[in-house]
Amino acid sequence: MPAPDAIADLDAVRDLVASLPGPDAEAAAACRARNAELTKPAGALGRLEELAEWLAAWQGRHPPRLERVLILVFVGWHGVNARGVSAYPAEVTDQMVANFAAGGAAINQLAKLAGAELRVIRVADGRPTRDFTRAPAMSGLGCARAIAAGMQAVPEDIDLLAIGEMGIGNTTPAAAMAAALAGEPGERWAGPGTGLDRDGVRRKAEAIDGGLCLHGAALTDPLAILRDVGGREHAAMLGAVLGARLRRTPVLLDGFTATVPGALLQAMRPDAIGHCQVGHCSAEPGHRRLLERLDRRPLLDLGMRLGEASGAAVAVQVVRAALACHAGMATFAEARVTGRD
Amino acid sequence: MPAPDAIADLDAVRDLVASLPGPDAEAAAACRARNAELTKPAGALGRLEELAEWLAAWQGRHPPRLERVLILVFVGWHGVNARGVSAYPAEVTDQMVANFAAGGAAINQLAKLAGAELRVIRVADGRPTRDFTRAPAMSGLGCARAIAAGMQAVPEDIDLLAIGEMGIGNTTPAAAMAAALAGEPGERWAGPGTGLDRDGVRRKAEAIDGGLCLHGAALTDPLAILRDVGGREHAAMLGAVLGARLRRTPVLLDGFTATVPGALLQAMRPDAIGHCQVGHCSAEPGHRRLLERLDRRPLLDLGMRLGEASGAAVAVQVVRAALACHAGMATFAEARVTGRD
Repeated sequence: MPAPDAIADLDAVRDLVASLPGPDAEAAAACRARNAELTKPAGALGRLEELAEWLAAWQGRHPPRLERVLILVFVGWHGVNARGVSAYPAEVTDQMVANFAAGGAAINQLAKLAGAELRVIRVADGRPTRDFTRAPAMSGLGCARAIAAGMQAVPEDIDLLAIGEMGIGNTTPAAAMAAALAGEPGERWAGPGTGLDRDGVRRKAEAIDGGLCLHGAALTDPLAILRDVGGREHAAMLGAVLGARLRRTPVLLDGFTATVPGALLQAMRPDAIGHCQVGHCSAEPGHRRLLERLDRRPLLDLGMRLGEASGAAVAVQVVRAALACHAGMATFAEARVTGRD
Repeated sequence: MPAPDAIADLDAVRDLVASLPGPDAEAAAACRARNAELTKPAGALGRLEELAEWLAAWQGRHPPRLERVLILVFVGWHGVNARGVSAYPAEVTDQMVANFAAGGAAINQLAKLAGAELRVIRVADGRPTRDFTRAPAMSGLGCARAIAAGMQAVPEDIDLLAIGEMGIGNTTPAAAMAAALAGEPGERWAGPGTGLDRDGVRRKAEAIDGGLCLHGAALTDPLAILRDVGGREHAAMLGAVLGARLRRTPVLLDGFTATVPGALLQAMRPDAIGHCQVGHCSAEPGHRRLLERLDRRPLLDLGMRLGEASGAAVAVQVVRAALACHAGMATFAEARVTGRD
């Protein structure tokens, strides 16, 4: 894991992405071999079998384990809120950080249920981005620092990491980044977020189009997209995904806003998020479209659209189910069950 | 709850279905009112909010609770196995019952993870049905007794019941019942089950068509369909769904085989399975089609096709997530979070 100072600019991030470690083929093969011996028809546990193999491959061990599960919620503040792009006032971000600390938010309940530790990280101590319709959202250095903060937030010896966010207004930079990646106008990616009405969604699309127009030439590069129209929590989530890869920690991404940093990485390198699963398909319309572009099937599809890593936290239980079956089931030989005719 | 002897024939089941209690509108309204006050945008927890309300409505109390969760696995033996309709030999049914008792099956691991008690019930002490291509699978009395056994298997004071099955060959009667309900040929509903090859699926479709032809005139009535081409575990599951309704216990149905008894009940009375959710959409192709006919969205879609209530057991965690949020979250007033602009 590079020291925070080593991520001094976006080129250092590019170098890191180019040198990511791959999966452990031996651990995956050992997992597949055991899957074939357990008392069930071949493949009958569906994605639970795939998840066990994914855990083994990216943890680099068989059997994989789930002793320490960590949920990271990155919090950001957005200059583009000046454009009237959220149904809630910007002070709700700080109020929700207090709610997380007091244990009253959805993610507090879901983390406890999932047997996971929750850490909430105010990226850059709450310093807002600039309004991206007027200027780049972040400097290159500011963006690199937020990425480094996300990387450093991933401790050693975590068996599974769930990544999510909170930040009033942050579906606007998320949609702007998705639009830039797709080369499409804002209206294709702007959704209601926390509950915007039609006029609000129109303002959001206009803000996105304004940003894409202003920064146009730079938007062919994923990290420039992040810097120019992204948010600090998106940068930190991108860093956490990279940090987890270096730590051999599989990742569950939450909804639309958390998947966009993954999409930036996949645009940089097709296998950059092989160690990630998408925990839940958000009701925010852009998420399903983004997942199709990424060729990803989410684990859950429960109509949630809250953020806070809430969908990923529910998905932790699916991963636990996968490991419980893989680790605990008897083999055909142990149970003296006859195989196929 | 009627005594077992009161279910002396299928007419007694018909009378019971006609007199089922409905949901508790007051408890549901109290749940909706609290949902609107919790620190999240309205509706942002999607189906988790719906599930909390469903629990309240069918438990008849607000807040609902999930202290005792029970998983019932009904086991049956099938005369139609003589037609070569399963990839596994019939003795695997007894071997898997032993595996359940020893704790080595998938459902043992998933029940433990879900904090649920598991009970495995050999319906009619393992007496097989007749081959439905030659004779009615059960007598009217035998069918009524299996239904009564399922009803009696639902204890008092269970907060959530998950219902599943085991029985080599039992996707054939399940598909036969679905075909009879739909008025369609066997090939529309016969699938690979535990892993039949193409010839096996063809034999299965032929067996179904043989049964539908033999019993044709009787197959306009859901309980006659169950008696003539069903299995004892299907009858017991139908009884357990009814017993749960009488006990005010919400139900999670497992995959294809467990949903078919629900489809029979819904054909008898459109609101008969309002207290049921479908836990998981099976990879068995008929399940998705059946859910479309029933206008039901499953909670999970993880490509599982094992039975044993395994999909419903994973879905228990989704229901727990719903209740954890509903019971544990702070309101906007408690957390001093500002509402919408």
